[in-house]
Amino acid sequence: MRFVVKVGMGMRADPGGATAAGSPPDIDGIRRAAARIAPYIRRTPVLRCRGIDEITGARLFFKCENFQTVGAFKFRGAVNAVFSLEQDEIDRGVATHSSGNHAAALTRAAALRKGRTTVVMPENASAAKRAAVLHYGGDIVPCAPDQHSREQALARIVAEKGCVPIPPFDDYRVIAGQGTAALELLAQAKGLDAVLVPVGGGGLLSGSAIAVSGVSPGTRVFGAEPAAVDDAYRSLRAGCILPVKTTDTIADGLRTTVGELTFPIIQAQVSGILCVEEHEIIAAMRLVWERMKILIEPSAAVPLAAVIRESGTFRGQRVGVILSGGNVDLDALPWK
Amino acid sequence: MRFVVKVGMGMRADPGGATAAGSPPDIDGIRRAAARIAPYIRRTPVLRCRGIDEITGARLFFKCENFQTVGAFKFRGAVNAVFSLEQDEIDRGVATHSSGNHAAALTRAAALRKGRTTVVMPENASAAKRAAVLHYGGDIVPCAPDQHSREQALARIVAEKGCVPIPPFDDYRVIAGQGTAALELLAQAKGLDAVLVPVGGGGLLSGSAIAVSGVSPGTRVFGAEPAAVDDAYRSLRAGCILPVKTTDTIADGLRTTVGELTFPIIQAQVSGILCVEEHEIIAAMRLVWERMKILIEPSAAVPLAAVIRESGTFRGQRVGVILSGGNVDLDALPWK
Repeated sequence: MRFVVKVGMGMRADPGGATAAGSPPDIDGIRRAAARIAPYIRRTPVLRCRGIDEITGARLFFKCENFQTVGAFKFRGAVNAVFSLEQDEIDRGVATHSSGNHAAALTRAAALRKGRTTVVMPENASAAKRAAVLHYGGDIVPCAPDQHSREQALARIVAEKGCVPIPPFDDYRVIAGQGTAALELLAQAKGLDAVLVPVGGGGLLSGSAIAVSGVSPGTRVFGAEPAAVDDAYRSLRAGCILPVKTTDTIADGLRTTVGELTFPIIQAQVSGILCVEEHEIIAAMRLVWERMKILIEPSAAVPLAAVIRESGTFRGQRVGVILSGGNVDLDALPWK
Repeated sequence: MRFVVKVGMGMRADPGGATAAGSPPDIDGIRRAAARIAPYIRRTPVLRCRGIDEITGARLFFKCENFQTVGAFKFRGAVNAVFSLEQDEIDRGVATHSSGNHAAALTRAAALRKGRTTVVMPENASAAKRAAVLHYGGDIVPCAPDQHSREQALARIVAEKGCVPIPPFDDYRVIAGQGTAALELLAQAKGLDAVLVPVGGGGLLSGSAIAVSGVSPGTRVFGAEPAAVDDAYRSLRAGCILPVKTTDTIADGLRTTVGELTFPIIQAQVSGILCVEEHEIIAAMRLVWERMKILIEPSAAVPLAAVIRESGTFRGQRVGVILSGGNVDLDALPWK
């Protein structure tokens, strides 16, 4: 387990960016997002598990975003973004590139306002992910499975169809929406010493950090990521964004590099990034399935893997863990 | 799907049997059991799922006994039985023969009163089931994997050690305890048209029928069982207990024949038995995993499989479904 000392306290805001849509949210922005999305999202439960408490020596409070609509916290940010748009923007439709939960979340969210969604999706995306987008009525535009092709295809759709792009994490509306999960958690579980959150692009982590520091400044916030894609860890050490070197992790939601908007927030407000090995992720995932009888996806198991690995750090503490999602391919389980 | 017309309304009680411990419980008996076990059991949630409602055309209320202590409703009956014993009986220890959830449930329940549990277990019982009993501090006595050997081994232990036998279902204390799940369900979901319950030995079904007829006489109760082990279906038609011809079903909790004490209650109070095929059980189990993000074991999927198969019967109705347990071997999933 590696801790990162905070390398910079200054918030580097970039409100002028094409996808920024304003300035970084503060706690009031998270609260406004919570009010905006409340009619549409689920207030997910916080579960406890005596058996896992005994194993970790901590008192864990699991925020079950695997029970969120579309099976992941991503629905929060998507709904907040969609309901921040003007009607004429909805009429033009929204678009994104994603091979994961954001695509389904955005499609489902836009449908709430009868808006169309176009998703640029790599040709090798899983059938389950394609099916989820189609199930919610989205249009899929296939592209080559590399970042450049994805961005190019999205730019073309935005230019040709006039769609409004909604990025998966580097967007202040999305960040504010994701922060509402931690806001709820703090209301459901009092006196937390720490909150652990998986970090991929950093939308959930940055939003959580804003929510926690605003409501409970004594509670530390940690990101947790696979050691194989430790871009957040390395970036925090370096003081600048260092991209992922590989996407070779089972935690398919965490293969992206932290974003230009999320990184400064993480720099300013997160206590550290904890890295875990692949076998630890799989073991933590299986532990939750067996002991709690709930399905979580590999990305959601990363924070618990960090608590288990660094049990000395969290022993006796009240620790919130955001179970970020439950979308897993039942035909390709990691312990097969 | 096959319905059975009720073949007899008379209650055939057998309070004198060695395992009877009194007379059949009525609704007050279920209520007393609920009060007795309340400090120890979990009041499990009732979950809904829009996606599965759309598939079935019914409004389903899932009573999540997969979240019960030891991962199955069996804990309710075991706790009620254990807390019905005198202290000198506890001091002698309890015993049972079981290769399933009852063994772990009884061991855990007896431990609440610092009582020892001895479990006669066939040599071919799964490692997971053995581990659960050992985890809760029980003693395992291996035997040959047939009914006669199991009963003989248990009788020897009872004779030699003076242990009190607690059967898995054919026991009025156990039946009363199992009935508390439906009692809770009726308080959590009002105005149910029907309640569906898996049937193996019939402890859960008979207890549920007593609870439902006592609290909500207009609500029909159905048992659901695999067509491969349709002893309850055939027994109701014949008017007498007809044993299972095979145990060849994935629903490992339902391989037993209905009991001498449970059968008359089922005869008197259950509206029918619904039978489903193996592939329907597997599909229903997977549907719950995928849509609800919760783990249920094959036996728990049998009632939902019946609702799906007989969607015409339940269309538009409010249907309670008892998800009886969540103990499943993750290394041997049926869709592998």
